[in-house]
Amino acid sequence: MLEVKGIENGIVIDHIQAGKGLKVFNRLFSATDNSVVLLMNVTSKQLGRKDIIKIENTFDVNMDILGIIDPNITVNIIKNNKLVEKLKAEIPKSLKGGLQCQNPRCITHTDDYAEPEFKLISANGKLEYECSYCEEITVYKL
Amino acid sequence: MLEVKGIENGIVIDHIQAGKGLKVFNRLFSATDNSVVLLMNVTSKQLGRKDIIKIENTFDVNMDILGIIDPNITVNIIKNNKLVEKLKAEIPKSLKGGLQCQNPRCITHTDDYAEPEFKLISANGKLEYECSYCEEITVYKL
Repeated sequence: MLEVKGIENGIVIDHIQAGKGLKVFNRLFSATDNSVVLLMNVTSKQLGRKDIIKIENTFDVNMDILGIIDPNITVNIIKNNKLVEKLKAEIPKSLKGGLQCQNPRCITHTDDYAEPEFKLISANGKLEYECSYCEEITVYKL
Repeated sequence: MLEVKGIENGIVIDHIQAGKGLKVFNRLFSATDNSVVLLMNVTSKQLGRKDIIKIENTFDVNMDILGIIDPNITVNIIKNNKLVEKLKAEIPKSLKGGLQCQNPRCITHTDDYAEPEFKLISANGKLEYECSYCEEITVYKL
């Protein structure tokens, strides 16, 4: 069985739905210089199969992005080999950045100063976010 | 330090140039159901930093694709906790599949029966492969 030892300092992103780890990884850590481990399809009592990411010497993680990829994700923050904080992702009620408005004519695509903001309209099977600029709905599959 | 225990049965793709592990992973294993670990930026005596991929219950790997991503890659095949074979990637002299011809009018893009084949023309800093159908050169950066 594949196993990874704990980390001294850093974060462990756990309980990622199997198959979604690569999405989290590509979205948040593809350009990091820190040591990072992506485990895919490891056995889990709770989920059957799950993905895990461990990243050293990093403590910040965008919980909103984790929440729209998989709200069941948990984040453990480890300092000096000790678990100092445990966070739970959740579907964000509002979002600044993280999503692109799907209306191609939305001002947020052309104006660098217009940072896209979104308000959660519905979370029924899929996430529907309304753009604060053009009111177009952008859908994100759960 | 992040460490992963060995695997009982499977392959270890080692000595991947740091930063290229994700490319190997996306290219070869993004859809696997087997347990797989991608380690990025781990410390290495030989390379300073390197990436490693370990995948369980898999013994086939496309050595040509590894060779065009990074010819310094080594592959260890593990059966019942024992190293049974050690392979070394190398730049392939010819390629069947693995690359797309960069000529958009090449027959290989439209005819399902025309599987693209390439012949290595030059390996000086970048790889130049000539398509057997249209003779266009497709360049792959090392």
